Amino acid sequence: MITKSTERWFTHDDLMQLEQRFRAAMINSLTGFKSLALIGSIDQLSQINVAVFNSIIHIGANPPYIGFISRPDSVDRHTLENIEQTGFYTINHVRESFYMQAHQTSARYPKNISEFDATKLKPEFKDGFIAPFVGESSIKMGVSFKERLDIKLNGTVLIIGQIEQVYLPMNCLSNDGFVDIEKAGTITCVGLDSYHSTKKINRLNYAKPNENVTIKQIN
Amino acid sequence: MITKSTERWFTHDDLMQLEQRFRAAMINSLTGFKSLALIGSIDQLSQINVAVFNSIIHIGANPPYIGFISRPDSVDRHTLENIEQTGFYTINHVRESFYMQAHQTSARYPKNISEFDATKLKPEFKDGFIAPFVGESSIKMGVSFKERLDIKLNGTVLIIGQIEQVYLPMNCLSNDGFVDIEKAGTITCVGLDSYHSTKKINRLNYAKPNENVTIKQIN
Repeated sequence: MITKSTERWFTHDDLMQLEQRFRAAMINSLTGFKSLALIGSIDQLSQINVAVFNSIIHIGANPPYIGFISRPDSVDRHTLENIEQTGFYTINHVRESFYMQAHQTSARYPKNISEFDATKLKPEFKDGFIAPFVGESSIKMGVSFKERLDIKLNGTVLIIGQIEQVYLPMNCLSNDGFVDIEKAGTITCVGLDSYHSTKKINRLNYAKPNENVTIKQIN
Repeated sequence: MITKSTERWFTHDDLMQLEQRFRAAMINSLTGFKSLALIGSIDQLSQINVAVFNSIIHIGANPPYIGFISRPDSVDRHTLENIEQTGFYTINHVRESFYMQAHQTSARYPKNISEFDATKLKPEFKDGFIAPFVGESSIKMGVSFKERLDIKLNGTVLIIGQIEQVYLPMNCLSNDGFVDIEKAGTITCVGLDSYHSTKKINRLNYAKPNENVTIKQIN
C-alpha cells in the first residue's frame, strides 16, 4: 500500500495480504451503491423464508428478466434451495422503516425457523402467487426461476428469473414508465452493512453524439 | 393492469403489452438503486474508450472479483471488444460534478471517436496500467479480464474481472476496511437516466439469531 498526499494505492498483492474481514468489507464497498431487496421464497413443505440481498441486477426488459448473485456457502442457500425446489420467489424493495429487520434476516437461522417469524416481517400472499411477498414493502415483484449460471471462478451463482407480477404505489409510475423508487421510499446500501437514503439530482434525456445532454422534464 | 386504491398491479401479460420504451424504463427501474461507474478501455491500436455502466456487481473478495452486465447490441460493445482484445480495463466511480459527462458517454459515437475526447473527461494513465482511468473520479480500479458468461435467455453477457489496482481518497477508508463512498462523492442511479446522491442512515453490526441488530460505531 503506497500513500500519496491524498490517495491510497493498493495493488492486487496488497489486497491479498489484507486481513480477511478487512478485505471483504473493502472489496464489497468498491462496487458502489447497490440494490437492496428482500427475497421471499417457499419450500415444498410450505415453509416460508425471507432473506436480504444486495446483488439484484437488471438482465433485460423484453421479456422482463431480473437476476441476483448468490453464494452457495452463505445463508442465502435456503433461498437458493427453495427457488430451485418450487420455481417461484418474490423480490421486495426495502424502506427505511424496516431496514433493521431486513438486515436481521442475514443472521444464520436454522432451516426450520422462518425469518418472517424471527424478524416480525409480515408475509403477504397475493393473487394466487405461491411465494410470500413482504407486506411492509411498497414495490414488490413475483418472479419465476429461468436460469442458473455457475461462476466457476469462485462458486457463486447468477440466478435469473422472469418478472410475473409487479405491484407499485399508484403515485410512483411516471408517464414514460420510469418508477420513482425514491418517492416509494426504497433505500440503497454499500458493502455489507451501510444503509443510505437518496436525493434525486436529475433525470437526463437520451444522449446523442454532437448534442449537449439536457435535463429531462417529465412527470 | 388492475388499479386498487393505492396500488397498481401488472401481470406478465400486462408488462408484455406495454409500449417498448415504456416497458424498458419501467423494468430498468425495478431493480432498485444501481451502481454507477465509467469503464475505461483501450484497443490493440491504443484507441481509448470510456462508457457508463450501471450494472457493476460484487462477485467475490478473496480473490477480489468484480462483474458487470453488457449487451452485445448496445453502445457497450466497444468496451466489450476492447476488454476481450487487450484484457485490461478500469472501473471508475461517478461523482455529481461530472454525471452529465458520464451520461453523455452513452451516446452512440462511431468507433473512431474516443468518448474521452467527445465528453472532455480526462484519461489518466497510472503506474504502468495499460487501460485509461478517469481523472475526475475519486475511486478507481484497474481490472484484468477473467471470465465471460453468456446469458442465453437474451444474449447479454456477464463479464468478470480481477481487481489489480485500487485508488482511494486517503480519508475514505475506515478502520475495518469499509470504504465510505458517500464521503468520496460517489452517486447512484435508477433506471436508464435518473441520478441520485445519498445520505447515510447507519451501518449495522453483523446480525446473529436471537440478538437484536445494533448500530455500528466505527470510524
